Amino acid sequence: MSTLTGKHVLRTDLLSNEELELIFSTASRFENALRSGARLTNMEGQVLATLFFEPSTRTRLSFETAMLRLGGQVISMADPKASSTAKGESLADSVRTVAGYADVIVIRHPQKGAAQEAADAVAVPVINAGDGTGQHPTQALLDVYTLRKEKGSLHGLSMALVGDLKNGRTVHSLVYLLARFGVRLLFVSPRGLEMPPELNAELKKLGSDVSEGRDLAAAMRESDIVYVTRIQRERFDDPAEYDRLKGSYVLDMDMIRQAKPGITIMHPLPRVDEIAREVDAYQGAAYFRQAANGVPIRMALLALVTGRE
Amino acid sequence: MSTLTGKHVLRTDLLSNEELELIFSTASRFENALRSGARLTNMEGQVLATLFFEPSTRTRLSFETAMLRLGGQVISMADPKASSTAKGESLADSVRTVAGYADVIVIRHPQKGAAQEAADAVAVPVINAGDGTGQHPTQALLDVYTLRKEKGSLHGLSMALVGDLKNGRTVHSLVYLLARFGVRLLFVSPRGLEMPPELNAELKKLGSDVSEGRDLAAAMRESDIVYVTRIQRERFDDPAEYDRLKGSYVLDMDMIRQAKPGITIMHPLPRVDEIAREVDAYQGAAYFRQAANGVPIRMALLALVTGRE
Amino acid sequence: MSTLTGKHVLRTDLLSNEELELIFSTASRFENALRSGARLTNMEGQVLATLFFEPSTRTRLSFETAMLRLGGQVISMADPKASSTAKGESLADSVRTVAGYADVIVIRHPQKGAAQEAADAVAVPVINAGDGTGQHPTQALLDVYTLRKEKGSLHGLSMALVGDLKNGRTVHSLVYLLARFGVRLLFVSPRGLEMPPELNAELKKLGSDVSEGRDLAAAMRESDIVYVTRIQRERFDDPAEYDRLKGSYVLDMDMIRQAKPGITIMHPLPRVDEIAREVDAYQGAAYFRQAANGVPIRMALLALVTGRE
Repeated sequence: MSTLTGKHVLRTDLLSNEELELIFSTASRFENALRSGARLTNMEGQVLATLFFEPSTRTRLSFETAMLRLGGQVISMADPKASSTAKGESLADSVRTVAGYADVIVIRHPQKGAAQEAADAVAVPVINAGDGTGQHPTQALLDVYTLRKEKGSLHGLSMALVGDLKNGRTVHSLVYLLARFGVRLLFVSPRGLEMPPELNAELKKLGSDVSEGRDLAAAMRESDIVYVTRIQRERFDDPAEYDRLKGSYVLDMDMIRQAKPGITIMHPLPRVDEIAREVDAYQGAAYFRQAANGVPIRMALLALVTGRE
Repeated sequence: MSTLTGKHVLRTDLLSNEELELIFSTASRFENALRSGARLTNMEGQVLATLFFEPSTRTRLSFETAMLRLGGQVISMADPKASSTAKGESLADSVRTVAGYADVIVIRHPQKGAAQEAADAVAVPVINAGDGTGQHPTQALLDVYTLRKEKGSLHGLSMALVGDLKNGRTVHSLVYLLARFGVRLLFVSPRGLEMPPELNAELKKLGSDVSEGRDLAAAMRESDIVYVTRIQRERFDDPAEYDRLKGSYVLDMDMIRQAKPGITIMHPLPRVDEIAREVDAYQGAAYFRQAANGVPIRMALLALVTGRE
Repeated sequence: MSTLTGKHVLRTDLLSNEELELIFSTASRFENALRSGARLTNMEGQVLATLFFEPSTRTRLSFETAMLRLGGQVISMADPKASSTAKGESLADSVRTVAGYADVIVIRHPQKGAAQEAADAVAVPVINAGDGTGQHPTQALLDVYTLRKEKGSLHGLSMALVGDLKNGRTVHSLVYLLARFGVRLLFVSPRGLEMPPELNAELKKLGSDVSEGRDLAAAMRESDIVYVTRIQRERFDDPAEYDRLKGSYVLDMDMIRQAKPGITIMHPLPRVDEIAREVDAYQGAAYFRQAANGVPIRMALLALVTGRE
């Protein structure tokens, strides 16, 4: 039987399909329990440490909620300037000290590989909540969980991914996972913000059906889901180019009316202007439900790695 | 029967007299339960999110204590610089995301109307913990609760309010409430920091007995309570004028000895110099009891809006 | 019978030997209970306020863990810039307000004497978590607790203390305590960072066996424990002097092989370079166990001062 007890959760590509199923079924079970008003006590007497060496209120609050909903407790370092790192302490030492307090550690760090470094230093399970340009596995997991809830199954689905596909760690973690489930991928991005060619090559080697383009409307006519990400002005050398492109990547109700019927809209949030406010009322606008799905997914991970599911 | 279940608490003038009675009687019941050493479990399994887009340790800790004393749990955003607002996210989006985690939201924001905007965006109850120059309803409620505890009843009372009556949102929320209970109001302020004329007019229209003056000692001879607020030097064009006035608005034991016997001293805190330290030992100095009353009042609000009183 | 109920914990020299024994035996009992997987409920329904007017993530998280492991709850002020002190409020007023919320207060402050000032202002127990160049009693207590666990007894032990002995408040709190238990002390420091002469004099008056030197290797040949502290470059007028000395005060495996067999290595952390990483694998390297011992010691203090042990 598959188990995650005592394991770290650092990247999505290290999780087997069996482990993924275990995570999703556990999340679903917790979600139903919460909905029915049940009080969960899986983590009673346990302490989670959230170590955020880079601020991220959304991800931190989602993990803390997950722990509290399981009956556990939380200690939190949310301001890196207040940490011992400022006194020259190594990451390994900081994490080793906190491992003397807590039963499980969630870490966010601006440097790629930091979560692995933390995991190597301690015996308690470490969950990666984003390591710079590295991975953000719990976001990818909650995205796939959302897809399954919104669409019933991933079988035969087509997903358009639009925006800055070059720099988005969320998107990179996600496409690997989707490729494994046979989701057809349509990448839509402005010139210069395309999916990295080596990642594209890898996806094709995995047997993925991947295509690239610049026309969001065209992609939305063929897609069951569109996953929107933010395009940052500062990524453009030529501001005029940004202003020209911006409009074509703002998703509004007009575009939805011309898209495949029943199209689902996802976004990792925060959103700025890339989805018009009017879309919020559309039934297929799943982004706030998606954010809420972070809680059961993180509950599942916390309970599984500590052997308390 | 009156109920606040599912309602937002944004301003005091929207609360009916029946709702006020319900809040005060619930607060009183919780306060007695705590005093008797009872463990309350009204909010067990529930999560409060405190979103402070403007720092206020006192108000935040008071709300968090209230939630914990009811057996609930807390997630907290205390540093606006670490929030997604810094990435350009709208207040509505931030609050909608947090509504996916928490059962009730307390918000503090530097902009007037922000609490209403937050409430409009979500289905979970929102409590206003201060919105710029707008309202600070829980402070006004705890002030009235304090008055009732200190004086038994509000019937026939006279209250002097002294200090910066122009800029204090606390005082504005409070006087509306006091006017409804028939409390006679004596406003004492330096030139230029008077109660806004339109507010004075409204109070008179409500049938309030309102008078204005500059002489604190005179007002204290006629008042059962004096409510002191801070005067900020930076409000004065002429520093000499500030220095001249300052002394006359510093409440000390000499002034208390010349005041109406048994006069009660209140202050929303923090205090700087406007009440002399020697007054702390005076039996009628109620300001620290007043601060402590914030806990039962906020317990009552949290339990009532979530239907768990 | 000795009891600490209702008492403040501000300095180690005010604790009687009987009180010390009570703290250590209570800590030991809690530690065993946690190890056996027992759920403690001593502090159920109680609220701890951690007031950190100076950041210290390690100490704050250790206290908060202690409270949570006892079934209690925590409110926290970790960012002094967000506190009412910024509005000109006195420390006494801040602490008095928080005493209206919490059952016990832990305070860290950059000014010597601040913990005493806080304790004088309130009726709830106050625990000093470091007051500037003053004391840091809970660190000294966990150090002695660690010594007893690592060595069985303090009887007949010799301890070398190395590094900046002039400026370290931790070391000053500790040596007083060790002197009382008859531990032989060998002070090793660079020129200019020696233990203050008046402290040395006091220790000798207490009957302590104290010696001073500059040779760490020599001291380690005679010591059962070496307590390492950080030397800060900025303490030196002549950077060349720092560079020359630095090497001789970096503890590595070579030095351990030449030291008294079974020597125990302690450090209050954070460590920078003064203990080589290779030492971490040495069985006698106790510094991470030492950090973890902060939790049972602080559990003991919280439970004892609130009468809930």
